[in-house]
Amino acid sequence: MSAVISKRSTEAVLISEVGPRDGLQSVAATMPTAHKRAWIDALVAAGLREIEVASFVPARLLPQMADAAEVVRHAVTHAGVCIMALVPNRHGAEAALRAGAHKLTLPVSASEAHSQANVRKTREQMVDEVRAVARLRDEIAPQVPLEVGLSTAFGCTLQGPVAEDDVIWLAEACVQAGAHEVGLSDTTGMANPAQVKRLFTRLQAAVGSHAGAAHLHNTRGLGLANCLAAYEAGVRTFDASLGGLGGCPYAPGASGNVVTEDLVFMFEAMGIDTGIDLPRLFAARQALREGLPGEPLYGMTPEAGLPKGWPSSALPFNKALA
Amino acid sequence: MSAVISKRSTEAVLISEVGPRDGLQSVAATMPTAHKRAWIDALVAAGLREIEVASFVPARLLPQMADAAEVVRHAVTHAGVCIMALVPNRHGAEAALRAGAHKLTLPVSASEAHSQANVRKTREQMVDEVRAVARLRDEIAPQVPLEVGLSTAFGCTLQGPVAEDDVIWLAEACVQAGAHEVGLSDTTGMANPAQVKRLFTRLQAAVGSHAGAAHLHNTRGLGLANCLAAYEAGVRTFDASLGGLGGCPYAPGASGNVVTEDLVFMFEAMGIDTGIDLPRLFAARQALREGLPGEPLYGMTPEAGLPKGWPSSALPFNKALA
Repeated sequence: MSAVISKRSTEAVLISEVGPRDGLQSVAATMPTAHKRAWIDALVAAGLREIEVASFVPARLLPQMADAAEVVRHAVTHAGVCIMALVPNRHGAEAALRAGAHKLTLPVSASEAHSQANVRKTREQMVDEVRAVARLRDEIAPQVPLEVGLSTAFGCTLQGPVAEDDVIWLAEACVQAGAHEVGLSDTTGMANPAQVKRLFTRLQAAVGSHAGAAHLHNTRGLGLANCLAAYEAGVRTFDASLGGLGGCPYAPGASGNVVTEDLVFMFEAMGIDTGIDLPRLFAARQALREGLPGEPLYGMTPEAGLPKGWPSSALPFNKALA
Repeated sequence: MSAVISKRSTEAVLISEVGPRDGLQSVAATMPTAHKRAWIDALVAAGLREIEVASFVPARLLPQMADAAEVVRHAVTHAGVCIMALVPNRHGAEAALRAGAHKLTLPVSASEAHSQANVRKTREQMVDEVRAVARLRDEIAPQVPLEVGLSTAFGCTLQGPVAEDDVIWLAEACVQAGAHEVGLSDTTGMANPAQVKRLFTRLQAAVGSHAGAAHLHNTRGLGLANCLAAYEAGVRTFDASLGGLGGCPYAPGASGNVVTEDLVFMFEAMGIDTGIDLPRLFAARQALREGLPGEPLYGMTPEAGLPKGWPSSALPFNKALA
């Protein structure tokens, strides 16, 4: 019995749903608060145990997130679910903590060009921001972990390649500044599996247990392959977005974020526990659709359906795990 | 120098383009012969070195393939390119060999239910067919290799799971019957990376150098992840279809075959040589489009474009390979 439990805990992954934040802030329409609540409820019902629900940025910049505090206050009523909020700075962090967020995530660009273009700050200045947020957190909510997501870690549309040494240096600096976890984001969809495996391996060597989530995009179709590579490198937390919401930057089908449904299907088919119920996850698309009528949703597994013989635990090649 | 060459030959992969056969026989429209020729020419110009150009089946069953012999006779005028033809039986093999095909491929279902439904033969009867084709080949074209593609090797929409022991038994039987290579096909898009890695590893253990290509589908979005898993298991030949042509069995975006463009991008980005020029490969889509107006083409890399900093050999993380 204990061998089985230990096997599961080693193999299990945490899917961190970012749609209500990353997805909703990328589309032009604003989802009404009641629909956000219903969507989050449906995600929880499907078994999601970590959800990034809002971004605490000025409403004049992102009107889609004007109800961030209200959304967090609703989301945290679900017991046993870690509710995350994105904060760009100390001011946003204070609002997120006062609303009751369980975990903060702060984006820091690995590319200097992207950092300047996005927040008009150097990377060093963003490390100072991490330090300021960490201090605030220590003062008013010391139990709340702070994650840094290193955006453009695998390449940048402005400057092209991003030196891996820069990524590692920045990860170490963020941990020293008080971040509990540092994840790597393929903001621009430029990552490949060899690079993903190499960079996460280096990240783990540099910051050990502070190495965080893989946030990978499907811009060039490599999203799941990159997630597989990250898994093989030891990553166990994966950001994904229901319906691939989060931008269709180029063309129909060219979604940005990895599609939660397909990612969960991949892991579950491999016998790796996600804790998520796929039919209920597919059902959660309806709540998203109702809140954003007309927005295209991606995801091939929901369209194709689950294979004959599913659930995978019934498939002969997974019986050995049972 | 020799180390570099040896490294390349170990790391290089062969992309076997199946669009002109697998793709064209899956769509309702028939591409005119002149357009088939132009498309094949464009594929060769992009660097493809193996192309499956036709299926030698009765024209009443597949009118799209009525010009199979003419297409093969044109394709083999390209020096240095292996021209493959699918043959369902001895009769088709004779026609393909007389047209000058360089290599034959014969599909054998790993699922008994699929075999009965598809060709009204048992798997054992199909092994006899392999033997008959191999004997014919020995008589009239002994230089021509015979490949068997084991369809439904990863699961079947009719019977559900397919026992891995059946796949291995059938692969061994086909090699004993005279097949030079036995590949595995995820006909139904049910494969997952763990299964792909496990089954190809078993295949290699069972038939050694007779282990052949991975023919993987993208039905549930796992196509590239499954190719990565096959690569990690030692597979070096991958079937793919330009524009993902080969069926949109469920919904827009839910292509069947792995998209050649995205697969080549993945390998090239990883520093694994395919011998294919990506801009020319994207250009070959135009020839396909002209021959099949209105048919949807898939592929995310052609839509997103190559990343800033491409070709990958210029990217810092690949400099070590140069």
